[in-house]
Amino acid sequence: MPKKISESAVRRLSFYHRILEELEEFGTTTVSSSELAERSGTTAAQIRKDLSLFGSFGKRGLGYPVQDLIRHLRSILGLDRCWRVALVGAGRIGSALFGYAGFRDRGFNFVAVLDSDQSKVGTTWGEVTIRHADDFERAVASERDDMVVLAVPASAVPGLMKSIHRAGVNAVLNFAPTRLDVPDGITVRDVNIVMELETLSFALSQAESRDAVRSDGPEEDGGSRSG
Amino acid sequence: MPKKISESAVRRLSFYHRILEELEEFGTTTVSSSELAERSGTTAAQIRKDLSLFGSFGKRGLGYPVQDLIRHLRSILGLDRCWRVALVGAGRIGSALFGYAGFRDRGFNFVAVLDSDQSKVGTTWGEVTIRHADDFERAVASERDDMVVLAVPASAVPGLMKSIHRAGVNAVLNFAPTRLDVPDGITVRDVNIVMELETLSFALSQAESRDAVRSDGPEEDGGSRSG
Repeated sequence: MPKKISESAVRRLSFYHRILEELEEFGTTTVSSSELAERSGTTAAQIRKDLSLFGSFGKRGLGYPVQDLIRHLRSILGLDRCWRVALVGAGRIGSALFGYAGFRDRGFNFVAVLDSDQSKVGTTWGEVTIRHADDFERAVASERDDMVVLAVPASAVPGLMKSIHRAGVNAVLNFAPTRLDVPDGITVRDVNIVMELETLSFALSQAESRDAVRSDGPEEDGGSRSG
Repeated sequence: MPKKISESAVRRLSFYHRILEELEEFGTTTVSSSELAERSGTTAAQIRKDLSLFGSFGKRGLGYPVQDLIRHLRSILGLDRCWRVALVGAGRIGSALFGYAGFRDRGFNFVAVLDSDQSKVGTTWGEVTIRHADDFERAVASERDDMVVLAVPASAVPGLMKSIHRAGVNAVLNFAPTRLDVPDGITVRDVNIVMELETLSFALSQAESRDAVRSDGPEEDGGSRSG
């Protein structure tokens, strides 16, 4: 049954799921595809197309039953089961992620934390004892972890990717500011805070240059997009 | 001079900058466009095209002087000045961001922290005293902040976006899992950890279904992309 689904379709499914959860919170029991479309900034046709990849939902003219569709989407998105997660990097970012309920809520459970800083090894976070990063490959393979979260400096990443591959883990959430060489069969999602920041500082400094041009004289071409 | 630059071009510039910094760390003084291309997973022609948007760099046959190009890129990306940042949300994510050196290194300085939790108001982080989120608009406007970082629940975002607009701030880094209605003239970058997570759980559960199909019998079509 599973066909090749585009990444943007998966993102839309994730977004529909979130909107449906909000609707459920407010006691809504059914929703039309046009209302769901309006709330998610897309079209009813797009929603029907996205959902049709996974079967037939809702009845024409009656809309979607909210709870049912949530259950289906949770199953499609793999949110109806538990995943075992190893966190590498017990610094500030790693610690914030470990405590972030967004993981647990989606069935992602941190079962291992590793760090190369000997002073952290042996301390406990909740029920997890921090181990040395040198044990990574053995730990992850023997525990059959499903996902690795990387919250390490960029320089540590290439070596870890090789270990992840050898340990047979297929999913990586990467917070290190680096482009990864990704072995076949592994899905990597990057959360690149630094790159987002630099996109913003670029936009800010471009806006400043435009303002400077403006106050310099009347030669401005009026084509600026700044609001 | 500034033309309309695509977001992907800005991301590449940010990436070139990071690679050049690494090269500088290892003492490299010049780099050819083909070497820079190889390290950044693009082509020499693409690099020349990206850089040509901002002037002429390097000499044909001699490559780029690393330090010079870093300085130019820092100026293009707006990393050569200080930006004033207000953080809304003093929870786990907000606290991790406040302590994250990646901001300071790029000239982003947290000058204000706000939260709607009265028990946090009045406590200090470094040299910043946490204020109540109700004061946001006045604080940000009077301090002439350049950027707002949102580390708040999704439900708080729409109201804050209106305040950001009224306060005249043009750059937002958003960590709330929500699609923003963005007023004209404001640049928003989303860091959507939840959506990245759900993309991964989708990939994991699709891989499981494929494995199930495989072990079920010989009808497999052999077209799976799993490695």
